[in-house]
Amino acid sequence: MGKGGMSHGGAGEAKDGEEENMAVWLLGVNTLKIQPFKLPTLGPHDVRVRMKAVGICGSDVHYLKTMRCADFVVEEPMVIGHECGGIIEEVGGEVKSLVPGDRVALEPGISCWRCNLCKEGRYNLCPEMKFFATPPVHGSLANQVVHPADLCFKLPDNVSLEEGAMCEPLSVGVHACRRANIGAETNVLIVGAGPIGLVTMLAARAFGAPRIVIIDVDDHRLSVAKDLGADEIVKVSTNIQDVAEEVAQIHKAMGAGVDVTFDCAGFNKTMSTALTATRAGGKVCLVGMGHNEMTVPLTPAAAREVDVIGIFRYKNTWPLCLELLRSGKIDVKPLITHRFGFSQKEVEEAFETSAHGGNAIKVMFNL
Amino acid sequence: MGKGGMSHGGAGEAKDGEEENMAVWLLGVNTLKIQPFKLPTLGPHDVRVRMKAVGICGSDVHYLKTMRCADFVVEEPMVIGHECGGIIEEVGGEVKSLVPGDRVALEPGISCWRCNLCKEGRYNLCPEMKFFATPPVHGSLANQVVHPADLCFKLPDNVSLEEGAMCEPLSVGVHACRRANIGAETNVLIVGAGPIGLVTMLAARAFGAPRIVIIDVDDHRLSVAKDLGADEIVKVSTNIQDVAEEVAQIHKAMGAGVDVTFDCAGFNKTMSTALTATRAGGKVCLVGMGHNEMTVPLTPAAAREVDVIGIFRYKNTWPLCLELLRSGKIDVKPLITHRFGFSQKEVEEAFETSAHGGNAIKVMFNL
Amino acid sequence: MGKGGMSHGGAGEAKDGEEENMAVWLLGVNTLKIQPFKLPTLGPHDVRVRMKAVGICGSDVHYLKTMRCADFVVEEPMVIGHECGGIIEEVGGEVKSLVPGDRVALEPGISCWRCNLCKEGRYNLCPEMKFFATPPVHGSLANQVVHPADLCFKLPDNVSLEEGAMCEPLSVGVHACRRANIGAETNVLIVGAGPIGLVTMLAARAFGAPRIVIIDVDDHRLSVAKDLGADEIVKVSTNIQDVAEEVAQIHKAMGAGVDVTFDCAGFNKTMSTALTATRAGGKVCLVGMGHNEMTVPLTPAAAREVDVIGIFRYKNTWPLCLELLRSGKIDVKPLITHRFGFSQKEVEEAFETSAHGGNAIKVMFNL
Amino acid sequence: MGKGGMSHGGAGEAKDGEEENMAVWLLGVNTLKIQPFKLPTLGPHDVRVRMKAVGICGSDVHYLKTMRCADFVVEEPMVIGHECGGIIEEVGGEVKSLVPGDRVALEPGISCWRCNLCKEGRYNLCPEMKFFATPPVHGSLANQVVHPADLCFKLPDNVSLEEGAMCEPLSVGVHACRRANIGAETNVLIVGAGPIGLVTMLAARAFGAPRIVIIDVDDHRLSVAKDLGADEIVKVSTNIQDVAEEVAQIHKAMGAGVDVTFDCAGFNKTMSTALTATRAGGKVCLVGMGHNEMTVPLTPAAAREVDVIGIFRYKNTWPLCLELLRSGKIDVKPLITHRFGFSQKEVEEAFETSAHGGNAIKVMFNL
Repeated sequence: MGKGGMSHGGAGEAKDGEEENMAVWLLGVNTLKIQPFKLPTLGPHDVRVRMKAVGICGSDVHYLKTMRCADFVVEEPMVIGHECGGIIEEVGGEVKSLVPGDRVALEPGISCWRCNLCKEGRYNLCPEMKFFATPPVHGSLANQVVHPADLCFKLPDNVSLEEGAMCEPLSVGVHACRRANIGAETNVLIVGAGPIGLVTMLAARAFGAPRIVIIDVDDHRLSVAKDLGADEIVKVSTNIQDVAEEVAQIHKAMGAGVDVTFDCAGFNKTMSTALTATRAGGKVCLVGMGHNEMTVPLTPAAAREVDVIGIFRYKNTWPLCLELLRSGKIDVKPLITHRFGFSQKEVEEAFETSAHGGNAIKVMFNL
Repeated sequence: MGKGGMSHGGAGEAKDGEEENMAVWLLGVNTLKIQPFKLPTLGPHDVRVRMKAVGICGSDVHYLKTMRCADFVVEEPMVIGHECGGIIEEVGGEVKSLVPGDRVALEPGISCWRCNLCKEGRYNLCPEMKFFATPPVHGSLANQVVHPADLCFKLPDNVSLEEGAMCEPLSVGVHACRRANIGAETNVLIVGAGPIGLVTMLAARAFGAPRIVIIDVDDHRLSVAKDLGADEIVKVSTNIQDVAEEVAQIHKAMGAGVDVTFDCAGFNKTMSTALTATRAGGKVCLVGMGHNEMTVPLTPAAAREVDVIGIFRYKNTWPLCLELLRSGKIDVKPLITHRFGFSQKEVEEAFETSAHGGNAIKVMFNL
Repeated sequence: MGKGGMSHGGAGEAKDGEEENMAVWLLGVNTLKIQPFKLPTLGPHDVRVRMKAVGICGSDVHYLKTMRCADFVVEEPMVIGHECGGIIEEVGGEVKSLVPGDRVALEPGISCWRCNLCKEGRYNLCPEMKFFATPPVHGSLANQVVHPADLCFKLPDNVSLEEGAMCEPLSVGVHACRRANIGAETNVLIVGAGPIGLVTMLAARAFGAPRIVIIDVDDHRLSVAKDLGADEIVKVSTNIQDVAEEVAQIHKAMGAGVDVTFDCAGFNKTMSTALTATRAGGKVCLVGMGHNEMTVPLTPAAAREVDVIGIFRYKNTWPLCLELLRSGKIDVKPLITHRFGFSQKEVEEAFETSAHGGNAIKVMFNL
Repeated sequence: MGKGGMSHGGAGEAKDGEEENMAVWLLGVNTLKIQPFKLPTLGPHDVRVRMKAVGICGSDVHYLKTMRCADFVVEEPMVIGHECGGIIEEVGGEVKSLVPGDRVALEPGISCWRCNLCKEGRYNLCPEMKFFATPPVHGSLANQVVHPADLCFKLPDNVSLEEGAMCEPLSVGVHACRRANIGAETNVLIVGAGPIGLVTMLAARAFGAPRIVIIDVDDHRLSVAKDLGADEIVKVSTNIQDVAEEVAQIHKAMGAGVDVTFDCAGFNKTMSTALTATRAGGKVCLVGMGHNEMTVPLTPAAAREVDVIGIFRYKNTWPLCLELLRSGKIDVKPLITHRFGFSQKEVEEAFETSAHGGNAIKVMFNL
């Protein structure tokens, strides 16, 4: 298992006298195994990082359950994981920004910097992107990884390695808020109080949103959202017939027009609510990806010039995330609900917790 | 019929010695009748305009056939028509920009200038908008109308009154191109070669779009589009199963990425094509309003950061339209395929032609 | 004094049985006098407001000392004052948003809503603007004024009338922050810690600016700025030779690049500092208006794509200011350093305090 | 001369059996010499290009006359030249976009793609930029150069190698038009009808500018500008006292407001004209760099919200330039007024012509 020519290292034996690098391999449906993972050669602009904190993302769970996510299919054994922080062990010859011992958060995607999209500053859309744990590229749930130095961001002294790992999900919220142009005069509705809804809420707050209403079908999630700073919460159903009435409740809770709605679920019902609740001239940002094809009242929204903004991952978000964590404008620690060590048994328990763990928000490995 | 207190004049008797003002009233389904229309008092900032050219819009036909359009319902007799040009007969006391004899094109909507949307420059979204032939406001298919001077735009010497009337449909294309930010580096796909598809194409060309591909189900329409300047045409079906194959044809015809797609039809099939054909980071502008609720692959498009831009009417478009007509960058004359006079018989024929007239694009009254 | 035909009321006698309306008239250099001021007729969209709090602006003092400000010259007696809050006494027939007794803050400028700039949403640039205390238009330091209802903004319960009056200077800071696009990732340098520098600082903070450095020549002003929330202060000289060294100090204080600089003074030295200190690709916003012609290193800044953004007054700022005051994101109360009553003697003292009063920031009348 | 370790190749001997690569070296003030130039090793993403057309830029002449340009100083012998087109001779192992024989235009600057500015899409501001003929980086007036493949853009069949070389100066105009957001509704004033003024004019026309007025002190230049498509020309003086009168002439020539002014000269007089002539809410784009420190009426312009936009080189312009040349929207051939071969004598003549050659616009080498 683990063939030569994989773009991002591969399974292999440790050289004599070297510590053997271990990683969590996805071998098949519901099959994860800690096995050796051979590091690629350190290039002049690369660093070698000892992983200390790795979070589990919904996409990791999705790969584990189905061996696929969106259009990506796992066809060969793949190391999983992409939300991570660690400590620099070694730096390449040209690296000036980091030294061994530096604590860093890792941005997981390596773009080509040769295509139009990269050059225009939309590198998240690069068709040549190599992204941790997106097949066929290996992930970062491993003792060590090799990564470009410019994608490893030094942590401020008061930001922990776990918080560094949380920059990855937080980046989704930050990128969504940037694309939707959230600021001091944007009243925000968030549909869905799961992990992505929560980081989007935290980001919107940090961007200055004066009023944030969050809705969900689940009381516990709503209660967490309230504790984390939502101004108002509204419990909704999964019944599409309720949209009109729920929108009225949302408007009442907001006490003002909804300037931007983030649909962090992405289903027919949630998107219908988003399109209907948003004021003329506002925006709906589609973050969640529940349904692929959607049946929604798109035309009436378009006729009020409600634009639908899509997002894909993030770009240039780590420096801002770290600044928001450093200054205390955002506190992600309450989102980390479960912690596990790096053993075969704990790995299995951790993924099980993330998939079915009731009130789990973020499950974190400490390596 | 025609009650007092209507906001924009009403039916009435001419005063002694005054010419009786006549207008085309929509009295019921398929019932239009030329009848007297009493002009409102001329305010200090108003002008009285003798109508000379009035075009028939798809919405006029829709009102005639169903007594409604979108959410607007005709509940009382209403004068129809809103695409118009005329000659100033009288100006209010404060009017400095116009004098009797001036040839003008009329922007049909009067906004409140007191709400947030007006003040922010998005007056087309004003909730208090009074718009020609949108119930309960009377339209402009009449001998004369009274209208604010600042909504009457003097025609350049080389622009005819009919071309002035064409500023209204052209404004839809211009507003769509502005919202989608069309320029010298935007390759454009237009879905639907009807009147709105054609004016959008002309506007996109004038905005500098280097490559324009237009698609439709109808050979004649495509042939007209080609004659009017489309670089390439692609005939498509109404079968949603064909989207993938047709998108491949579109990409081949474009020979480059599709930066912006205008869906000038607004059906599940057309919007699916639009969302699929547009490149990562591009935009789809929804102009047509065929279906209300739409079943479309919205999530995959959003995940490529393809944004969906809505439009409603237009704002600040008349000066630009007149400049584009004056300079010859746009020629709307080929769009005027039929002309009628202002008699009961011709009115009926004109609407019939617009509704069912085979190759009719724009039907125009000469008063 | 006070001729007929003045656009905004004028001096006059009270009608029988009516309270006589009094106002502070600017009659000549250093000559202010409380005299009767006849209110104009209340139009259907107007309200009559009893003034309760009126602040003194630098431009008021400038008019008093020189009878002019920028290109505006006082050629006839003029009522002064434009920073104001009051209580609704009477509303016009069409006014639905307000009722007598409502506490409001007044936006001072009435634009035409017929020109291109108004229609595009840049009404602050309207060439037909009628603005309180900008000749030949009368101001608002009076017992009562008549004003359009849509320019009178209802105060939230927890916002005082004085805070309402402070919306005017705060609006300058808010508009500057909007034009410079301040947000959660904009490190801000403010040049000048006078009243405008301070409101700009408060606005930048409320817009999310992570780091704010403010510089001035005066220790007391810097100390006030620090108390009001500046992260760092740097004392500078008036000597243009010191720019390079002071910029080094500023960069050290910021500990990061300067993304946006607000020059709230507007002199050769301050603008040279602003242009030099700002990072490549950043912005300098010129708010202060010390020098008219400027000798500054514009070319080297342009060659780093540092753009210079101008501002004129504000637009659409009252709702946001009131929201920021309501939520406590901005506290303007510490800026009000002196208060005076509405008598001839106190008026003279108040203006003297504002002009020469050492540590005065904002001088406020309570009527 | 020519030390080891130069970042972009260096002088050297040809290997046995290899053709010796020759280049034009700048050795001192007014001293250019054709000497051997050793090519660097071809990297996997590089190509080797045989130069066929190289233009002379004003900065080349400036280096020749003074050994410096702006802040850059030539301290060691340097190969000159950066406007170039050529034919691919060899491609690196990873290059897929080009094959030997392809005709290409070369973008001269190699940015780092690791700094914030690169990642945000403003790579032209990269502090690590390596740019042809900007010390200490060698230029491209040589038989061959090695360059990254992604900076070599294949020429359409109907675009010549000389036109390919013209993409470089044209890019300055294109980048300026992009930053100033030129489009179908932007009336443009261009100050200065030299090579940069002319390419900016061509770009503005291609971007859709409806009216372009160009001003200069020289009749011949104005006549060329008129031939190349300016709508109106105005002859001006170098006397700063004439600004007001000349602005009146400009306004008359434009027959409308000036939305954007490009100052392609960059002197006190030209910038004063630009700031004064531009309408409230418009933009001045500073392209030329005549004066370093400027004495200009900046405050009155800022108080009309006239923004000053700086530019530095360009980014992502080659694909658009090639499209504009391909489609015939821009014709740069008339700008090439003189041609020279690649001999010591002709090199000297060519630079002399470019520096003092009366009506020379662009001087081109054919290698």
